[in-house]
Amino acid sequence: MDVSRYRIEPGAPVDLMRWPTREDDGFGGGKKTARKQLVELSRRLGELQARLYAEGRQALLIVLQGMDTAGKDGTIRHVFRAVNPQGVRVTTFKKPTALELAHDYLWRVHRHAPARGEIGIFNRSHYEDVLVVRVHGLVPREVWERRYDHINAFEQLLADEGTRIVKFFLHISKEEQKERLEARLANPEKNWKFNPADLAERKLWDAYTEAYRVMLERTSTAAAPWYAVPADRKWQRNLIVARVLVETLEAMDPRFPKVDFDPRTIRVD
Amino acid sequence: MDVSRYRIEPGAPVDLMRWPTREDDGFGGGKKTARKQLVELSRRLGELQARLYAEGRQALLIVLQGMDTAGKDGTIRHVFRAVNPQGVRVTTFKKPTALELAHDYLWRVHRHAPARGEIGIFNRSHYEDVLVVRVHGLVPREVWERRYDHINAFEQLLADEGTRIVKFFLHISKEEQKERLEARLANPEKNWKFNPADLAERKLWDAYTEAYRVMLERTSTAAAPWYAVPADRKWQRNLIVARVLVETLEAMDPRFPKVDFDPRTIRVD
Repeated sequence: MDVSRYRIEPGAPVDLMRWPTREDDGFGGGKKTARKQLVELSRRLGELQARLYAEGRQALLIVLQGMDTAGKDGTIRHVFRAVNPQGVRVTTFKKPTALELAHDYLWRVHRHAPARGEIGIFNRSHYEDVLVVRVHGLVPREVWERRYDHINAFEQLLADEGTRIVKFFLHISKEEQKERLEARLANPEKNWKFNPADLAERKLWDAYTEAYRVMLERTSTAAAPWYAVPADRKWQRNLIVARVLVETLEAMDPRFPKVDFDPRTIRVD
Repeated sequence: MDVSRYRIEPGAPVDLMRWPTREDDGFGGGKKTARKQLVELSRRLGELQARLYAEGRQALLIVLQGMDTAGKDGTIRHVFRAVNPQGVRVTTFKKPTALELAHDYLWRVHRHAPARGEIGIFNRSHYEDVLVVRVHGLVPREVWERRYDHINAFEQLLADEGTRIVKFFLHISKEEQKERLEARLANPEKNWKFNPADLAERKLWDAYTEAYRVMLERTSTAAAPWYAVPADRKWQRNLIVARVLVETLEAMDPRFPKVDFDPRTIRVD
């Protein structure tokens, strides 16, 4: 499976209406094969993470964005199941606090950038500042309009200083969101995930789609590419994300550090 | 298996020379059975963590301490393998930075206390301030002598405000440490874990044992009990830690939150 086709090429126009939200059922050999592949990819991810941590020289930042119910939480749970929590730091960005709002919008984000050796996962991110903020007009157009450039510059800084960045837009259809919201209402153990405010957001579907489109066009860069991942089928979504991450980490090629002593000369008494 | 026997009762004298570093091989039904039990316990831990996160009202703080090579990293990797990294935050306390040293020793620790809904894992902790600091005399006796009381008061604060605390001392024998250090020297992929300074620390084994003993006696409280876990056998250690955590979380009894709307009345358009 070639996952590079989900990457948004820098500068290329994006048409989300034509971008798939699901592949056909034979994708990746079908659901059952895909599940087995995911187990293998997760295991491999665990191995690569152990090397990244031991090496302590590079960081990996993963950004997850998508409409409500797109599966950001589920992606983290499934793809990272074989990864040692010690080297992974998940940051869930919620509504900014008063302290956060008293600073520029990248301030709170920068604090959570992963350290060398770590994998940082952003569940939502600074991109909310050109998504929800844009859709609801929380700041004037001339303010959010400049943010795409800030963000590219910020991500370039991280990349230049040793952080590999990979960003996933989990792309679901409006029909799939309806089913997922209904599932949250139907299952008492999932009720708590339902927020009545989600319905108001759903009415803004087209405005969000446009905001995502512009985000993908303006902030997919060589240093920090976006992948627009078909996410109506959870198993397809997980497989694509896991494969992109394994390929990314393989390209980073983390290695167990060499030591500056000769192990054969040391005796433990 | 009754894991309460590994709990240090508040105020009881501790004799680490007599405290086991391993159980016999029939422990928990033997190694193979124990492995199966661990899979089941990890799964259960994952379920309970999902509830804790959803509930968002209580936190769990896990403290791991032990001699070098006692298995702090390995415990995290094995026991938390089925837990969603989104609700778990591991903090590895290293040598304090200049900024940290410019504050009291609990300052950096407090910042990393888990939020409601989270499981926080401390890989080393504020206890280093009555261990390495005491053994090496980094501050005068009258300074570290008062710290046991500070720590108990600090942990009482966390407990009173909604954080359950459980602390594990991973207890290995001096012989087992020798084998583990030698394994790090023999395996090129493990060389990086070997720090020649560990040999100097090993020479201070008895002083550390005494410091651990006093720590266990003075800081095992009803609000924040210590468990002294036989850790020469990794499978025994994992099984005990996992069981204590499952029992602790079951006692906390986290529940999916009730919602303040009637799900049946809501329609998704």
